[in-house]
Amino acid sequence: MHTQEFSSHLQIRDVIIDDPFWNEIVKRVRQKVLPYQYQALSDCVDGAEKSHCIENFLKAKSVNARRKAGLPVKKYPVDKWQYTEENTDENAFLGWVFQDSDVYKWLEAVGYFLQEYRDSALESKADAFIRAICDAQMDNGYLDTLYIINDIDKAFTNLRDHHELYCFGHLAEAALSIYRATKDDRLLNAAYRFADLICETFCHSKKRGYDGHEIAEMALVKLYRESGNLAYLHTAKFMIEERGKQPYYFDIEHGKHTDGTAYRYNQAHCQPKHQKEAVGHAVRGVYLYSAMADLAKECKDTELECACKSIWSNIVNKKLYITGGIGATVHGEAFSFDYDLPNDLAYAETCASIGLIFFAQRMSELEIRANYADVLERALYNTVLSGMSADGNAFFYVNPLEVLPQASKEDSRKQHIRPVRQKWFSCACCPPNLARLIGSLQKYIYTVNSSTVFLHQFICGKADFSYGELQLTKQGTQFCIKIRAQKECALAVRIPEWCNNFDINCKYTVKNGYAFIEIRHSAEITLDLHMQPRLVKCSNRVRANVGKVAVMRGPVVYCLEEADNGKDLQMLKLDSTQPLEYRDGCIYAQGIREKADESLYSTYSERAFTKCTLKFVPYYTWGNRGENEMCVYVRVE
Amino acid sequence: MHTQEFSSHLQIRDVIIDDPFWNEIVKRVRQKVLPYQYQALSDCVDGAEKSHCIENFLKAKSVNARRKAGLPVKKYPVDKWQYTEENTDENAFLGWVFQDSDVYKWLEAVGYFLQEYRDSALESKADAFIRAICDAQMDNGYLDTLYIINDIDKAFTNLRDHHELYCFGHLAEAALSIYRATKDDRLLNAAYRFADLICETFCHSKKRGYDGHEIAEMALVKLYRESGNLAYLHTAKFMIEERGKQPYYFDIEHGKHTDGTAYRYNQAHCQPKHQKEAVGHAVRGVYLYSAMADLAKECKDTELECACKSIWSNIVNKKLYITGGIGATVHGEAFSFDYDLPNDLAYAETCASIGLIFFAQRMSELEIRANYADVLERALYNTVLSGMSADGNAFFYVNPLEVLPQASKEDSRKQHIRPVRQKWFSCACCPPNLARLIGSLQKYIYTVNSSTVFLHQFICGKADFSYGELQLTKQGTQFCIKIRAQKECALAVRIPEWCNNFDINCKYTVKNGYAFIEIRHSAEITLDLHMQPRLVKCSNRVRANVGKVAVMRGPVVYCLEEADNGKDLQMLKLDSTQPLEYRDGCIYAQGIREKADESLYSTYSERAFTKCTLKFVPYYTWGNRGENEMCVYVRVE
Repeated sequence: MHTQEFSSHLQIRDVIIDDPFWNEIVKRVRQKVLPYQYQALSDCVDGAEKSHCIENFLKAKSVNARRKAGLPVKKYPVDKWQYTEENTDENAFLGWVFQDSDVYKWLEAVGYFLQEYRDSALESKADAFIRAICDAQMDNGYLDTLYIINDIDKAFTNLRDHHELYCFGHLAEAALSIYRATKDDRLLNAAYRFADLICETFCHSKKRGYDGHEIAEMALVKLYRESGNLAYLHTAKFMIEERGKQPYYFDIEHGKHTDGTAYRYNQAHCQPKHQKEAVGHAVRGVYLYSAMADLAKECKDTELECACKSIWSNIVNKKLYITGGIGATVHGEAFSFDYDLPNDLAYAETCASIGLIFFAQRMSELEIRANYADVLERALYNTVLSGMSADGNAFFYVNPLEVLPQASKEDSRKQHIRPVRQKWFSCACCPPNLARLIGSLQKYIYTVNSSTVFLHQFICGKADFSYGELQLTKQGTQFCIKIRAQKECALAVRIPEWCNNFDINCKYTVKNGYAFIEIRHSAEITLDLHMQPRLVKCSNRVRANVGKVAVMRGPVVYCLEEADNGKDLQMLKLDSTQPLEYRDGCIYAQGIREKADESLYSTYSERAFTKCTLKFVPYYTWGNRGENEMCVYVRVE
Repeated sequence: MHTQEFSSHLQIRDVIIDDPFWNEIVKRVRQKVLPYQYQALSDCVDGAEKSHCIENFLKAKSVNARRKAGLPVKKYPVDKWQYTEENTDENAFLGWVFQDSDVYKWLEAVGYFLQEYRDSALESKADAFIRAICDAQMDNGYLDTLYIINDIDKAFTNLRDHHELYCFGHLAEAALSIYRATKDDRLLNAAYRFADLICETFCHSKKRGYDGHEIAEMALVKLYRESGNLAYLHTAKFMIEERGKQPYYFDIEHGKHTDGTAYRYNQAHCQPKHQKEAVGHAVRGVYLYSAMADLAKECKDTELECACKSIWSNIVNKKLYITGGIGATVHGEAFSFDYDLPNDLAYAETCASIGLIFFAQRMSELEIRANYADVLERALYNTVLSGMSADGNAFFYVNPLEVLPQASKEDSRKQHIRPVRQKWFSCACCPPNLARLIGSLQKYIYTVNSSTVFLHQFICGKADFSYGELQLTKQGTQFCIKIRAQKECALAVRIPEWCNNFDINCKYTVKNGYAFIEIRHSAEITLDLHMQPRLVKCSNRVRANVGKVAVMRGPVVYCLEEADNGKDLQMLKLDSTQPLEYRDGCIYAQGIREKADESLYSTYSERAFTKCTLKFVPYYTWGNRGENEMCVYVRVE
């Protein structure tokens, strides 16, 4: 049984971010990323791959109209994951099977920013999209443009590969965000109607199916929390319980019998409550694990909670890049085996780190243990932020830890590794996912239960909670927390894993990585989190990193770029006996550059070298100065 | 113009191998590999993948008979590279498009051994195969069972992807070997008839095509040398000259227009005489380069010779594994870019190293430079020998330099890396290729021109050449060469690149890596090639090997195996200040084993370690003790 009370995150409206680091990033997303993504979704960015997303909604509307008017509707195949202008009829659906979700994610992000303050230009853009979406919905609530346009009779017949339930999930998340911002309930009603159809279709007596790409479960829990409609919670629970049961639903759907091994990709090889290891497609994985944590909380399901803890521990102890990236292989965009974390072949999709943040946040609510917020912070400051360019209009999908531009061009094993951020992707899940995460950063800073306010992330600003308010400011590495509460309570401040030394100007006790401070009505607490640049080693169970070291400061991972250190970064070696220097946002280390060998093979002798200063820049800033070599790990002596 | 006279290798009959190292290997191939491969080709090995090779010849015979009798012949598709029992009709062709070549390679190997001494059991096995092959040939000389069985009307319509010309090449090589052994000319006549059809089909006025997988050119030169028929030489020259010309023949054949980039795979992106770099499928590459060297010699074509030298230099200076392996990527079984030589993802196909030996041998005939024989030796003692198990009935196709069995099973990027040798392969090019190479080892030891006998490889035995005879024996690292010549001549003995110290008991001058010794009628020369175990470094331009070292003795590369050194070989480090010890065929080094880190990430500090002795075994012997970790390179301090 639970020995501690669950906590809950604050709503976006209850938190105001005012942070010297984050203000610029939030502003960049609001002022640059959102308008840019609006253009991209509307197929108006020169030189970027086309989205076709809005076009599909308009086509679906017109097909619906024809159907209602009793006019004949042409059918097209629903046999691919991606429908391009080359392989499909121009009147048919275009894009990936999950193309609808791109606009949902954008709307969700817009909703978050509108919760902060209204913006009529943005609202009117959103309005046009919302209208297009609602117009595309069928009378029975069904809403997935691929099947509406191409062949509605095949709806819900390929849950394994297609993404109707995934698109529903993003629709619901967008709808809630927009509704909370503007009270505009058009999208929310559309989501409820689709949810009702799903509840009716997928239940004990009917289709015993579940989504090939998880997210519907998370979304159903959110709709339940908003509406109190238990059918949504039950359907989420049903999908989690059915997943991986034998006979496999995906076998039944495809008329074959397998041992389920292939369904590791979808985390559908065994029931979630029996899963102990993170496997398969990384984004799908963390979306499922997040929903499992949601249900563990809502249903006080200790079996699911236990599975979540095992999986969490597997990820953070054996499958996590130093940058918070997950998914070590491009094959299936998936988790690899324990300790297989290659730098130059990494997948580490931006979306996967975002999903890891969802999972971490939910685990924090289930259990107070600093590790959850530590990992969340690691992902946030590194792989998530690296997903976006400094000017906000180019994006990384994949976040490698070592890049040689020539390899990306000439070695097909590394063609997923882009040496510079792209304007857009035909499969554009990451950019709007990033926008919705940054737009909802407020949710990840605090959680609260009946007696304690937990400060998880050191992002300055103000927060209102049910029994008080709090202000966090900082000067350098010194934080000041002003708190006022209507009752006696505790403030629990995370002591980050990267912090070896800290000072708090009051009495506290440390438990599970948090400093607990008793609060009587009000207090002003100063907290100094010493933040020296430091060398970090990766376990020598990870083959790729033996003999190497990484440089970090606080949660930020640094890297070497060719622009600062010249070509052939592998010829550099860091001298661990010399101090690191932090200056102007960069870290400088002393080291050597080996002379290049002329012969491919020669008798061993120590190489000639020249001493040099190694300049490290934050990982999230890499690739903003054109194509160049980059690496996180450097040899050490 | 050439400043030096070409040399030529000796015929198999003129060389007798009697060498303490090689006798066992030659015997293993003759007594175990050949009979085993006979069983495999006849589909009689339990648990091994089926060959279907002989079955196809029998089917082709029966189709021919039906055709001659005017009976209807059913057609089957010729649209795949591999025809399995699952995807094709049981009466149709089965196996890979190049399946015929497996029996040809086996026959070629048999022919070489029969040239050494007759063996009636082996001859009768060969006879059955030869009969099946000859019976399958069509009246016009055409002989490729895929098209004969499935659809003869499509013959020679997909040179890019299918392997009719490749199978012809292997047929010709087999035919010559068998003919030289037994004077049985059935196969040779079949080869001449097919060659005549090819010369007729592919010539200036007709199909301006060439083979997608090269070898026909090499074979045509051999047939020309045997028969003196200039048509064969001209067709070989034609194919080399047409290759890569624009418009691309492969474009014409497939009715499309491309920039030819995709034809780098087939080395058909530009004309061979303009090629400077080794690209594309590694086996195809070295087979082409070998033919280019043949033509450079036959036609005194300096342009081709120059291209050969550029390509050679590109391979050996930038694309060669320390083991003599080539082909750094599984994608296209191909050369990667310069200095991209990953250990754990290597392809390094056994066949590719065999082809590199063909190329090296031909370059030695064109130009006296020890590098050719050095590289030949490197490939021979490492990647070629590693292709075969100690008991002669299991084989490697791929020869990685680092293996973690778990990765081969769980990481699809490494599924081509097998941690133990396989009984057989559905695509079984390597095992019989190895047999034909070992069977013809005699060809690679010496070359001779009008004034000089070149000793390239230190494989003991006897040799007859046109103006004398020679005997090579050894005791430890001390070689004794007894030579008798009918005229004044020179003996040129290669000083191997691995030999820093040598003693010769007579006057000599060193040129291009060979010690030239004047011979008047007869001489007895002793030569000591000091062979200390040594540490070798790989250029630091190769990212995979920085901070690491390999261990060699003579041409033999050594490796660490888990069986001797425990799991987690990456935690070992070699102490370069301590001497290496050679004992019982193994090399022992002093070093340390790091304690395993418990945390995935932690503040840098030097790890605790224990001192240990590292035991290295010859690379070619690895994987003979069950599944285990292996690595060639080890960290050094």
